[in-house]
Amino acid sequence: MGPGPSCVSDSVYAALARPTIGHLDPFFIEIMDTEKKNLKTIFRTGNELTLPVSGTGSAGMETCFVNLVNPGDKVLILVNGVFGTRMADVAGRLGANATVREFEWGTPVLVDAVREELAKQKFAIVAVVHAETSTGVRNPVEEIGRIVKDHGALYLVDAVTSLGGIDVRMDDWSIDAIYSGTQKCLSCPPGLAPISFSSRAVEKLKARTTKVPNWYLDLSLIMNYWEGSKRAYHHTAPINMVYALYQALYDLLAEGLEKSFARHADAHAYLVAELEKIGLTLLVAPESRLPMLNAVRCPEGIDEAKIRSRLLDEHKIEIGAGLGPLAGKIWRVGLMGHTARHENVDRLITALKHVL
Amino acid sequence: MGPGPSCVSDSVYAALARPTIGHLDPFFIEIMDTEKKNLKTIFRTGNELTLPVSGTGSAGMETCFVNLVNPGDKVLILVNGVFGTRMADVAGRLGANATVREFEWGTPVLVDAVREELAKQKFAIVAVVHAETSTGVRNPVEEIGRIVKDHGALYLVDAVTSLGGIDVRMDDWSIDAIYSGTQKCLSCPPGLAPISFSSRAVEKLKARTTKVPNWYLDLSLIMNYWEGSKRAYHHTAPINMVYALYQALYDLLAEGLEKSFARHADAHAYLVAELEKIGLTLLVAPESRLPMLNAVRCPEGIDEAKIRSRLLDEHKIEIGAGLGPLAGKIWRVGLMGHTARHENVDRLITALKHVL
Repeated sequence: MGPGPSCVSDSVYAALARPTIGHLDPFFIEIMDTEKKNLKTIFRTGNELTLPVSGTGSAGMETCFVNLVNPGDKVLILVNGVFGTRMADVAGRLGANATVREFEWGTPVLVDAVREELAKQKFAIVAVVHAETSTGVRNPVEEIGRIVKDHGALYLVDAVTSLGGIDVRMDDWSIDAIYSGTQKCLSCPPGLAPISFSSRAVEKLKARTTKVPNWYLDLSLIMNYWEGSKRAYHHTAPINMVYALYQALYDLLAEGLEKSFARHADAHAYLVAELEKIGLTLLVAPESRLPMLNAVRCPEGIDEAKIRSRLLDEHKIEIGAGLGPLAGKIWRVGLMGHTARHENVDRLITALKHVL
Repeated sequence: MGPGPSCVSDSVYAALARPTIGHLDPFFIEIMDTEKKNLKTIFRTGNELTLPVSGTGSAGMETCFVNLVNPGDKVLILVNGVFGTRMADVAGRLGANATVREFEWGTPVLVDAVREELAKQKFAIVAVVHAETSTGVRNPVEEIGRIVKDHGALYLVDAVTSLGGIDVRMDDWSIDAIYSGTQKCLSCPPGLAPISFSSRAVEKLKARTTKVPNWYLDLSLIMNYWEGSKRAYHHTAPINMVYALYQALYDLLAEGLEKSFARHADAHAYLVAELEKIGLTLLVAPESRLPMLNAVRCPEGIDEAKIRSRLLDEHKIEIGAGLGPLAGKIWRVGLMGHTARHENVDRLITALKHVL
């Protein structure tokens, strides 16, 4: 019940432990094709370039920036937490001319401020985190997408924690590059980063005059393994992780995306109500709260780290600590994927009553 | 029985499917510490900076170069196959001033040629592949190490296919940066890249005046998660893959490194003898052959791709194709890790007799 990894179902563990076959085996290619199709459904996109990158969620972030940033590109990064800050670090290392617009942690990115920045200068890329895992804030990705589209920049979105738990509509929201992780609302162990690039993003990638400065994450090479008839070997895919994600996506689509979103919303509402009964409140204003990541204010005069240790040691429940300016001030309670169930909320509340 | 992934034992599959816990859980930290210790034993090194990178073997290559290459650095790359060629590509993307010295595919790097190159100019890094998976050649890593040490360059070695199957002595051979993969002689599914850096390599990393141009693989950040008491969160580790590697290393050390090397050598000798009985010969001269990767010459006038398909379809045996100049000319038969057993050789020979 921390900020991820989330609980994994038995079906996904079983898939993970299936016999390892070759990365060019025709049966494995079939698995890849189905996984790609299901990722497109879940991202709500028709983008051909949709696949899981062979690394964890942060490798997805690295992939989006390293393939799309040309040195000197003006990039606007909207920051209201750890993962926005990380985007700025990643982009800066790649030679981007980055403008960082900061917002108070625990509050959302303001659409008017984005409009203001875009009026000041022309950006090649605008980047934002959908679900800021460090604060529990949902950023207005759809609204920002409208103004980024008018501006003409590429729109890069972090959907690590949102995908599978709240709606992510890549095409409708004019997103050009998106990445996620397997260990949040997809309820799969960590190890892969689903990504998708729009045709505009692919055009920019193909128009590069220099090679992508990262061989391992160069999508112009990787797409030749995941697409078409040639299936050119690039690197050995993490076969068993691909099996696990296959099963996790299958399970999510078997439940249905809308039902999964409703289950997350319901578990969240129940958690908030039960926390209130024991006098605990949330950091984030109701209209910007994420269902899958709940930032709970630590009561005054309490050793918050000790509470977390006792939850883990005595009750086998993990919750997360606050980060950066929120260290010591909040706990982060995850209700992600398979974890988003009333019985887990009940177990946490019972344990909290014990240890507080 | 291809060039990897190799067969995985039941104990490793079982470890892979253990419940996913948090990447900051004290129990997980214990697993990390033991894994690090065992990797040091297997690399024969005392290097503190020894850990599995969260990506496949090629991510290990990327990690070594991106952390050690400063733009403009003179790098000598010794090439006699696909993976040496890949090194040159990786280094070039990172702004290295790379000199490529090529050797015929199927023959080893010549030590005298290396001496000649080092006499011509001063290099910051010399890089070579120990076991060239594309050709089945063992390069003289120990001998090259002696002259690189005298020259004063950092010595970077690819041990993807060698580690666990033949001896790799990082400290004795004066290697400064090494990487491997899990899916070869460690008999673990693909997904992690064990790496190790010498104190000289760490000094160069720490002396950088610019950030490593790759946040995901920046060892100066990653080491703070894998070392010391702070365990600063960097990215979410691929928890279940770390379990699997833990078990694979445990199994390898339980067998004993020397016994594993002897088993690989024995299975290889048996394969060569049995192939000769059916008129098949190896590409590589006996003194440079790898036991775990056998390049078998395809007989004249045969459709080699059809033979591979039939082995897979009718006999459920995968072998690899030739690459680059060796495409259509060789098959690559892997005897890696758990696969290196007489019964597998017998099964392949029986199948080959059927389909040839």
